[in-house]
This record gives sequence, structure tokens and C-alpha cells, in this order.
Amino acid sequence: MSPCRMARKSFPLSKVYSLLEPGPVVMVTTGRNGYPNIMTMSWHTMIEFEPPLVGFVISSSNYSFGLLKATRECVINIPTVEIAEKVAGCGNTSGAKTDKFKRFGLTPGPASKVGAPLIEECYANLECRVADTKMVNKYCFFIVEVIKAWIDPTVKNSRTIHHLGRGSFMVAGEKIRLKSRMK
Amino acid sequence: MSPCRMARKSFPLSKVYSLLEPGPVVMVTTGRNGYPNIMTMSWHTMIEFEPPLVGFVISSSNYSFGLLKATRECVINIPTVEIAEKVAGCGNTSGAKTDKFKRFGLTPGPASKVGAPLIEECYANLECRVADTKMVNKYCFFIVEVIKAWIDPTVKNSRTIHHLGRGSFMVAGEKIRLKSRMK
Repeated sequence: MSPCRMARKSFPLSKVYSLLEPGPVVMVTTGRNGYPNIMTMSWHTMIEFEPPLVGFVISSSNYSFGLLKATRECVINIPTVEIAEKVAGCGNTSGAKTDKFKRFGLTPGPASKVGAPLIEECYANLECRVADTKMVNKYCFFIVEVIKAWIDPTVKNSRTIHHLGRGSFMVAGEKIRLKSRMK
Repeated sequence: MSPCRMARKSFPLSKVYSLLEPGPVVMVTTGRNGYPNIMTMSWHTMIEFEPPLVGFVISSSNYSFGLLKATRECVINIPTVEIAEKVAGCGNTSGAKTDKFKRFGLTPGPASKVGAPLIEECYANLECRVADTKMVNKYCFFIVEVIKAWIDPTVKNSRTIHHLGRGSFMVAGEKIRLKSRMK
């Protein structure tokens, strides 16, 4: 894998659910002009197909919480196993003390519709705007709308990683087909 | 795999997150006395570690929506690839017309704290009570508390299935360990 993906392609908003439903660990970027941050996260779910709404928890003890509340924008970046150690590293450190892009050798790229950066090394990037904060005070639960999605079309079998807790992760395995009438 | 699991064992509530974070397709059972239902679902997330809170979307067009609103109880059952066709089958049919336990040869077992049944063929079962319905009207988003959890301790590598959309599913692959300070 090249360290910097050049083949990024627009991805239909109507298919965003297929990227998030399998439950991958994601990296949320926040910030604007100058000091972006990265947070590793697993507590997310689709809320609506289109426009795609995503709900996720960012604890108020995380540095990203304040950035997201202030800017109301973020990017959900989806990494694969090739950069798993960087993903875990971002989860072990705080943006209050560390520039995680520099520390972990990740490349911030410009988003098209939000101020937060894309992570170039991730195979998919979802630019988001906060859509609902009613559950933030009680549960730190944000609902965001995906307003632009990108994917690296050269990645056919995205080996996403899935958190099992306490240092253990599952890597996406084989694909199967089942008779399904669902989207 | 035996069709009916006998080895069910209590599972600590503090570790429930490790079952749901990886994003498996789950089967939600609802109902009380007589007419239980099953719904296949992928839109769920952890909300809090302990007591474990889980948020999920059940569309108001689903038969389970009314059952859950009325009874305020459900079981989140986690299947593995061995019963993948039954899982997809439950997703393709409506409980308004079909007894899915009979139709797909699944076995309802008694839960300990809720009226909805466990699915015996699933390797883990989470008995839940509805904790918050503030987001139900707008997003069909329920927050439930897991009040009792069960697991089949003989299943060491749970090959959960993960929805990719349109009949395509990913099966949980290899496990890796990373240096992580997260729970």
C-alpha cells in the first residue's frame, strides 16, 4: 500500500451505509485551520440511509469532543489493517498533548465541504456535519449527516479492523452472499 | 454445531461492549407470552460501558417496532455464520405474517429477566429493557439497558457476520493484538 492514496473517488451517499454497517473501527478527524485532531472510535451506527445520518459517541473526556462541539464538522475516516498500529496509537494518545498526524506519520488531506482534514491513508472518508445534538449532554451521542463521501476504488476487499476490547481486534474475513431483500 | 446450545453461561455486563463493538448482525427478539418475533438488525452501537447501554434503530415499518414500544423489553441475540441463512431469512420476512421461529427452525428459550425469548442457536444473548425513547419519534432510535447477558463459553472464535448490503456479508476473520490502552 502506498502511504498516500491518490486514487480517491467520489462515493454515492446512498451507499454509505455499506461502509459503516459492518462495524469497523474508524478515525474521526476534527479541527479547522492549523490544529487538526484524530480520534479512534468504535461506537457508531447508521441512523438513516439517505441523506446518510450516523450516530456516534465521543466522550466529553476526549479532546475531540470540544472540537466537534465548536466546529460542528468532522470526517469519519475508515482505516484497514495495513495501518492498524497507527489506528491503535491514535486511540492511546490525546490530541491535547500530541499532534497525531505527525506522531503517527499520517497525512492530512483537504476535505471538499468541511474544515476537518481527510486522512489520506484511510481507504474511505466521510465528510460530516453535526445534525442533532439533543443527546450530547446526556450520552455524548452526536448525530451527523454525511455530506460527501470518498473511496479508494482500487481497494476491493477492504480489510477493516473491528474492536474486541483490551488490545484484541478482529480483521474483516471472507465475504459470503446470502439471499437478501435488504438494501 | 448442535442446533440447541446447552452450555449457556452468564456473561459479565462489564464486557458486553466486546460483543457488540465489532458490529455483528444481530437478531432482536420481542414479544411476550405466545407470539414472539425476530428481527435482523445491523444499526446498533454501544452508548455506555456499565451499566451497558445500547442504541439501535428499528424502523416503524417493522413489526418489532410496535412490540418493543408496547413491552419495552427485548433480547439482542448474536448469531454466527453457521446459521447465516436463517439470519438473512428473518431479515426477508415480516413477523406480521410469519412465525419466524417455526419458519426458520429456531428455538425460543426462556430469558431470565424479560418476557422476550432467547434464540438458543445464537452464541450470545443480551436481555434488555428500554431505557430511553426520546429519539424514537424522530429517528426510531431506542436506547436499551442490558440487564443480563449470556454466552456459550465453548465458542472461542465467534465467526459473526457483518452486513455489507445487497446480499453481501463479511464473516469475522483473524484476530490480531495491538498495544492498546482502551477497554
